[in-house]
Amino acid sequence: MSVKVVTSDLEPLLNTFEEYLRELVRSDVEFIRLIEDDLVTAGGKRVRPQLAFLASRALGGVPYEMELALAVELLHSTTLLHDDLVDDAETRRGHVAAFRKYGNAVSVLAGDYLLSRLLYLLSITGRMELVYMFSEVARELAESEVLQFQIAALGDYSFEAYERIITGKTASLMRLACEGAAVLGNAPSEWRQALADFGLFYGQAFQMRDDYLDLMGTPETLGKPIGGDVREGKLTAITLRLLDIYPQETLEILHRRGADPEDIEILRKLAVAAGVDREVVQSIQGRIDRAVAALSALPPSPSREALEVLAKREASRLT
Amino acid sequence: MSVKVVTSDLEPLLNTFEEYLRELVRSDVEFIRLIEDDLVTAGGKRVRPQLAFLASRALGGVPYEMELALAVELLHSTTLLHDDLVDDAETRRGHVAAFRKYGNAVSVLAGDYLLSRLLYLLSITGRMELVYMFSEVARELAESEVLQFQIAALGDYSFEAYERIITGKTASLMRLACEGAAVLGNAPSEWRQALADFGLFYGQAFQMRDDYLDLMGTPETLGKPIGGDVREGKLTAITLRLLDIYPQETLEILHRRGADPEDIEILRKLAVAAGVDREVVQSIQGRIDRAVAALSALPPSPSREALEVLAKREASRLT
Repeated sequence: MSVKVVTSDLEPLLNTFEEYLRELVRSDVEFIRLIEDDLVTAGGKRVRPQLAFLASRALGGVPYEMELALAVELLHSTTLLHDDLVDDAETRRGHVAAFRKYGNAVSVLAGDYLLSRLLYLLSITGRMELVYMFSEVARELAESEVLQFQIAALGDYSFEAYERIITGKTASLMRLACEGAAVLGNAPSEWRQALADFGLFYGQAFQMRDDYLDLMGTPETLGKPIGGDVREGKLTAITLRLLDIYPQETLEILHRRGADPEDIEILRKLAVAAGVDREVVQSIQGRIDRAVAALSALPPSPSREALEVLAKREASRLT
Repeated sequence: MSVKVVTSDLEPLLNTFEEYLRELVRSDVEFIRLIEDDLVTAGGKRVRPQLAFLASRALGGVPYEMELALAVELLHSTTLLHDDLVDDAETRRGHVAAFRKYGNAVSVLAGDYLLSRLLYLLSITGRMELVYMFSEVARELAESEVLQFQIAALGDYSFEAYERIITGKTASLMRLACEGAAVLGNAPSEWRQALADFGLFYGQAFQMRDDYLDLMGTPETLGKPIGGDVREGKLTAITLRLLDIYPQETLEILHRRGADPEDIEILRKLAVAAGVDREVVQSIQGRIDRAVAALSALPPSPSREALEVLAKREASRLT
């Protein structure tokens, strides 16, 4: 399994992470084991665990960093399992979405099983504040996912809603991965704030980059057809700006959810013609800058640098 | 909303419960609000909160009894929301299942939202042991639901699996409702054990009674067509015994999932002819007896009596 780590120092930690994860999610119920095996071996980039580890190390190491890393990844994995269903995604991480193999039912329940393991991890840390923080992030996650669905159904598009969605479905959990380390380490409040801000802005940049690539990327690097968000009725920064500039044309395409073969290409061309693609790239860069700026409140360290590298990557990430 | 309470002393508590629940699950996201409104107003019998309150009162009252009652009900409600999908249930509590109105996606996510509120409640209690206990019960719930699905898919029926399923999907949560009160009240270990045993055996009797009524009840009292379990490939104590006595006939009906119009009636007649219905009623009575016996370790009180009444009702419950 290939994990693209930001620093080689993380390799041993991430290997332990994989072993612990495998043990944690093991069940004697065969259908659960099949799905979890899929999930564990599928791997993914483990971005959230890396954030937790780097935040911990930037503070000199905190207790229960492993449990934090696992807990944030489990919450993320659950949303993938519950989202495979939601999104009707053809592929996820290059694998056939779990639900196509075993049915929606088992997919949802396997997600619930992961949440039970998340609760277990939290109980190990002994930190009630962390339980509270996870409750808030889990709420934001569910609310923003439903909001995204609601907007797709009702078509009431706004930048405000988009901001809430990228924050709720991605940035809040990345903020938790970083801020959680500060809580576990009883870090001073300015360090805690710095890590929270870093996670939040990095997470927003991350989701905006994902959204950008979904329309402006290539199927080859993405590993899936482009235009998925348009087909699912999901708003992104690009389509929101196009709605301002070419309201009629854009609205028609969004309403028919990119059903015409040419639709996605038309949106791409409009985006380039109006300079909207560059605008969004700049907006992403703005979040990266804020994330990096937040780090300056932390003492210099290789881990702080690694967080900076991680954030700066978002400006040019292609997958 | 009519709540059939076991003692009028519970009425004010349950009214407060309903208000707190309504406030707890309120969201500014419209689609979540619609589902939660449905769930809150649909109400249900609130059996689990009643267990928590009575267990608390049998111990002279414990701190955070309300949060415990809400937490167990939220976990239950989540499984209903995730189960509507799983079971493809036509009706649930007499309402149109949530997912038929808003789609599977929102149903699953609204369940996740409830779980976030459960985490919040746990953080309020400040008791890590309770977080751990919820993690174990949530695990049992997910595992037994998947096991039920797996058995339906593979057809490997056994009494052992049935025991695990009724315990995991129902009894473990009822045990938690009772034992959780003992934990919150720092009760002596024999009282804690008594409440845990009561919840467990009561819960098993409860689920077995549900299963019994699903085949032997009437559509009028049940409020839904009988034979649903057979159509979903779910085993019950009755069909398991019929598999022993009339293997070929029963297996054929189970394999075609009661698709013939006469199938359900045939199973009912076989059950009566072989005395299997009475056997199962006796088995339920056995669990009730064990539940009631467990209570004797507790000091006598009106709440202990109310728990006894609740358990004894299972022998003749019709809805």
